[in-house]
Amino acid sequence: MAGGITIALDAMGGDLGCAAVVGGASIARVRHPDVHYEFHGDRALLEPLLDADALLKAVSTIHHTDVAVSMSDKPSQALRMGRRVSSMWLAIDAVKQGRAQAAVSCGNTGALTVMSRMILKTMHGIDRPALAAIWPTMRGESVVLDVGANVVAEQKNLVNFAIMGEAMARTALGQPHPTVGLLNIGAEEMKGNEDLKGAAQILRETDLNFDFHGFVEGNDISKGTVDVVVTDGFTGNVAIKTAEGMARLIGDYLSNAMRRSLASRIGYLLARGAFKVLRQRMDPGRSNGGVFLGLNGIVVKSHGSANESSVAAALGLAIDMAQNDIINKIAADLAVLHGPEAQADTKTPEPA
Amino acid sequence: MAGGITIALDAMGGDLGCAAVVGGASIARVRHPDVHYEFHGDRALLEPLLDADALLKAVSTIHHTDVAVSMSDKPSQALRMGRRVSSMWLAIDAVKQGRAQAAVSCGNTGALTVMSRMILKTMHGIDRPALAAIWPTMRGESVVLDVGANVVAEQKNLVNFAIMGEAMARTALGQPHPTVGLLNIGAEEMKGNEDLKGAAQILRETDLNFDFHGFVEGNDISKGTVDVVVTDGFTGNVAIKTAEGMARLIGDYLSNAMRRSLASRIGYLLARGAFKVLRQRMDPGRSNGGVFLGLNGIVVKSHGSANESSVAAALGLAIDMAQNDIINKIAADLAVLHGPEAQADTKTPEPA
Repeated sequence: MAGGITIALDAMGGDLGCAAVVGGASIARVRHPDVHYEFHGDRALLEPLLDADALLKAVSTIHHTDVAVSMSDKPSQALRMGRRVSSMWLAIDAVKQGRAQAAVSCGNTGALTVMSRMILKTMHGIDRPALAAIWPTMRGESVVLDVGANVVAEQKNLVNFAIMGEAMARTALGQPHPTVGLLNIGAEEMKGNEDLKGAAQILRETDLNFDFHGFVEGNDISKGTVDVVVTDGFTGNVAIKTAEGMARLIGDYLSNAMRRSLASRIGYLLARGAFKVLRQRMDPGRSNGGVFLGLNGIVVKSHGSANESSVAAALGLAIDMAQNDIINKIAADLAVLHGPEAQADTKTPEPA
Repeated sequence: MAGGITIALDAMGGDLGCAAVVGGASIARVRHPDVHYEFHGDRALLEPLLDADALLKAVSTIHHTDVAVSMSDKPSQALRMGRRVSSMWLAIDAVKQGRAQAAVSCGNTGALTVMSRMILKTMHGIDRPALAAIWPTMRGESVVLDVGANVVAEQKNLVNFAIMGEAMARTALGQPHPTVGLLNIGAEEMKGNEDLKGAAQILRETDLNFDFHGFVEGNDISKGTVDVVVTDGFTGNVAIKTAEGMARLIGDYLSNAMRRSLASRIGYLLARGAFKVLRQRMDPGRSNGGVFLGLNGIVVKSHGSANESSVAAALGLAIDMAQNDIINKIAADLAVLHGPEAQADTKTPEPA
């Protein structure tokens, strides 16, 4: 483990339970043989799963708890019931203790948001963390944030989101010089609100390490016009869920259309492989999950109904960001904006 | 014309010009033989097009102007240059004069928003008109508003949007008892802002003629969870453009996926008809355009790149709403909310 990366997994969150989490780690291990996995969950369930995969078992530890945050718990309930003992709390706490470099959970987003913030605290200069998603585009992938950690975002929050998103595009997407856009609407003379205009001005005038493209519109997200799309958590959450809904609707149309005639049915059978690829790429946010940015530690949220391959993708993202030290990259950019003291808080926090 | 419906067409707006507008009217005429069409545009261009379609010519008049609002004009420019003489202004003014029951334009949205509001004025009790779109869903079609007439919406605006959208679902979609939802984000304890909460309370407590479903999320739009989705113009505009972008991305994936192997290429050829149907249904807002609601008159906006069939769809929508007297239906519901004086302003305005 020395010098290596440890990922803490909340093995009890998510609709599919421990099996999907262990299965995901099993896939991730092949790509990242040097990473250590710390599973937080019910030992009685986890042990047989790990026994069946000796290679994974060799790089794993189990931290027993049988307290799980359920998908329907409100954040306040989750805190009351599971505080300091739930698998979700313990996984995040492993990052705070410095034992793990990132936490991954498929659990309840609301509870994960509140707990992550409570345990890891925001970085100096950040008062609102953001949930960032990786969005498939015509040019590859882009980072979109905030997709739901906050309801509103003021000018300074949007600027911070731009900095955090840009660091994520560099570390997770491997873009050396990401472009950043602010999500707005088109009509020239009513373009956006004061916070958007103010944030655009700061981003234009500050000497940050990235290319600020200006305003983009909803259709620019999937087009891949910029590598990082910055918006408030309300708009971002509506956008990502609307896109998911649209993808599902088109999938539905496609199935129906393909059943219409004998020719199209045969066509469907022949093109089956193509449809499979399509379906996998189609759902933004589903494959990779989201990442909480702006905290003193990395927390990756996988989809609640994440299967093995989604968990593996979330793990891959967590590992990439930990290996590339995203927290210090964000801190360095915040220092440009807020002054050098912004960097002070980003050392590994001491155990409580 | 007596007792019938007249639709005023801005024949100069839009990327495809007069030919698409006349072509659209030609298609609409077959379905609505009793409607009269008033074309505002360049007589030299319109006359030969109408000469080629004697049946359409018999129910049409041309009002000459060679001033067009261009797609790139800012609303203020459009007003300065084209005020009272542009084809867009004249088409809307025909509604104000009582000569036409609805105006249809494929032109510049910003200019159309500003001119419509300036010429027709808002209904009593409405201080912000809304742009409503018809959105394809798993259950058929829903109305989504505001998709971009305003940047912000207060509590009372959202309530009015609900009333207007519900009237549109009854008249344009033929839903006898539409359900209405307010677009929000999911996380329970941070659900929405004060305006959303306030609007929800009024809609729950007022004895309006429709079923208020409560909050819905982005993915509910395409799912068809409710018949009317109410949101502010910023969020709605981002949502519809994001969905359009997603549809285009999936179309792109589909074409690429279909070219991957010989089997999938043959499959594509066999299923071609199915793909055509899919493409037609895929783009929300593109086929029908949007409708400005809350004004003393009906203005339908077709997509800027609208072809004949899109113009025909926009005309069909305008005719449906004029025949079903949507303005008075909205006024009746506003009267429930604001008191009976709301109905006073809705008589056909007198010529200026």
